[in-house]
Amino acid sequence: MTLQEMIQTHPHPASADRDALVRCIEDCFSCAATCTSCADACLGEESVQELVRCIRLNLDCADICGSTGRILTRQTAADTGVLRAVLEACAEACRVCGQECERHAEHHEHCRVCAELCRRCEQSCNDLLSAIG
Amino acid sequence: MTLQEMIQTHPHPASADRDALVRCIEDCFSCAATCTSCADACLGEESVQELVRCIRLNLDCADICGSTGRILTRQTAADTGVLRAVLEACAEACRVCGQECERHAEHHEHCRVCAELCRRCEQSCNDLLSAIG
Amino acid sequence: MTLQEMIQTHPHPASADRDALVRCIEDCFSCAATCTSCADACLGEESVQELVRCIRLNLDCADICGSTGRILTRQTAADTGVLRAVLEACAEACRVCGQECERHAEHHEHCRVCAELCRRCEQSCNDLLSAIG
Amino acid sequence: MTLQEMIQTHPHPASADRDALVRCIEDCFSCAATCTSCADACLGEESVQELVRCIRLNLDCADICGSTGRILTRQTAADTGVLRAVLEACAEACRVCGQECERHAEHHEHCRVCAELCRRCEQSCNDLLSAIG
Repeated sequence: MTLQEMIQTHPHPASADRDALVRCIEDCFSCAATCTSCADACLGEESVQELVRCIRLNLDCADICGSTGRILTRQTAADTGVLRAVLEACAEACRVCGQECERHAEHHEHCRVCAELCRRCEQSCNDLLSAIG
Repeated sequence: MTLQEMIQTHPHPASADRDALVRCIEDCFSCAATCTSCADACLGEESVQELVRCIRLNLDCADICGSTGRILTRQTAADTGVLRAVLEACAEACRVCGQECERHAEHHEHCRVCAELCRRCEQSCNDLLSAIG
Repeated sequence: MTLQEMIQTHPHPASADRDALVRCIEDCFSCAATCTSCADACLGEESVQELVRCIRLNLDCADICGSTGRILTRQTAADTGVLRAVLEACAEACRVCGQECERHAEHHEHCRVCAELCRRCEQSCNDLLSAIG
Repeated sequence: MTLQEMIQTHPHPASADRDALVRCIEDCFSCAATCTSCADACLGEESVQELVRCIRLNLDCADICGSTGRILTRQTAADTGVLRAVLEACAEACRVCGQECERHAEHHEHCRVCAELCRRCEQSCNDLLSAIG
């Protein structure tokens, strides 16, 4: 897999828990893409009026997941305090967005899938926070 | 000013401290642009080897400031918990990046300007955190 | 002004038309922020159903204007072919988004302001394309 | 696979060549992540001075691939002219970045992998341009 390969060929790869790191980066980027897609699918629904909060939280979650994925990808001269604060923000955005998507999961398949990805990314952020210590 | 105008013409503008909000959005976007510029200027310096940590923190700070600026700009169905977590991450990234830029401020004018913008954005994030309560 | 200052303190500043460059960077970042704000204001309107295309084009325009602003900000080892292609894409996104916003300008002040910013950014991209040659 | 699933559960999925679309979105997001990683790995090399152009083009390519991936992901009320202009810009950024990475492929494994991803993304953009017509 490419991301694993990229992290391994880095001149100074992260010494810490590399599996938790790679999983978290992958989940951040997947969640960012899925939230972008869910916001757009909600916007295309006839019931868009009822999905306004979902769209808004999707856009926020896509933004913070994208930034977190890029920041975690960087292995050179990392700052643990920044990583921790960003992971906490990302976990919170995923938690809130996942809850909102869950509310629409029964009626909209895209919300069901997105809720799942949000929960997985929240978990990966929390796992990496534990691994960083 | 355009941003102020946009926030005011929103159908449901933020009721809270609008001055602190607008100032924070402006400072986030200015800091994102300045960090992007400082990373690039550092990359163009002959002494790039000594500026590696500065470039890396600039890239992180640009990412998180950009996301924070966009998230704060959205007034529809905001979630205070997400805002707070994102503001805390942004303040931390600005604090760490500003400290590193400060170390090079004597030799590189772009680092001096960038350190200033980082400190200002850190302050605005903390002010808005206080205003949100 | 900070951006002007940053471009000037770069170790190898752009030799070409610096005024057109700085204006275009500023307009890209202003347009990105305004489109993010307009998408959110449209989402908050009761008539959101009629503003679906406007929201979608706002999101696209915010994405491409943000990327174009960052790419133009970088002065180190620039590639003219990439700049030109990106400026053309940005001008097209601004043109289409500005036209859509214009259609709602009479009913929504945020669309009127956004249409103006889109047209200004389209013009700045085209001016810089001419200056690059 | 999630992205495929998301595109399929959209209320108005793209009627056109869905395989070319999904492949292009995936390649854009993979290329964005890989370029972010390659820029960072180059920054960590002792020979960073020789990799300055590579880092700069990686950052540009990551920006435009990220934007293109998000724009292509949106199926609601798409504008073909904007899609075409963005795909052309993305193909050009990938072409130029891939060429530069290729120059360092023998010495740096991360550049070899990144060159491959850039070429694949360039191809997918051109394939989708043909499919759009």
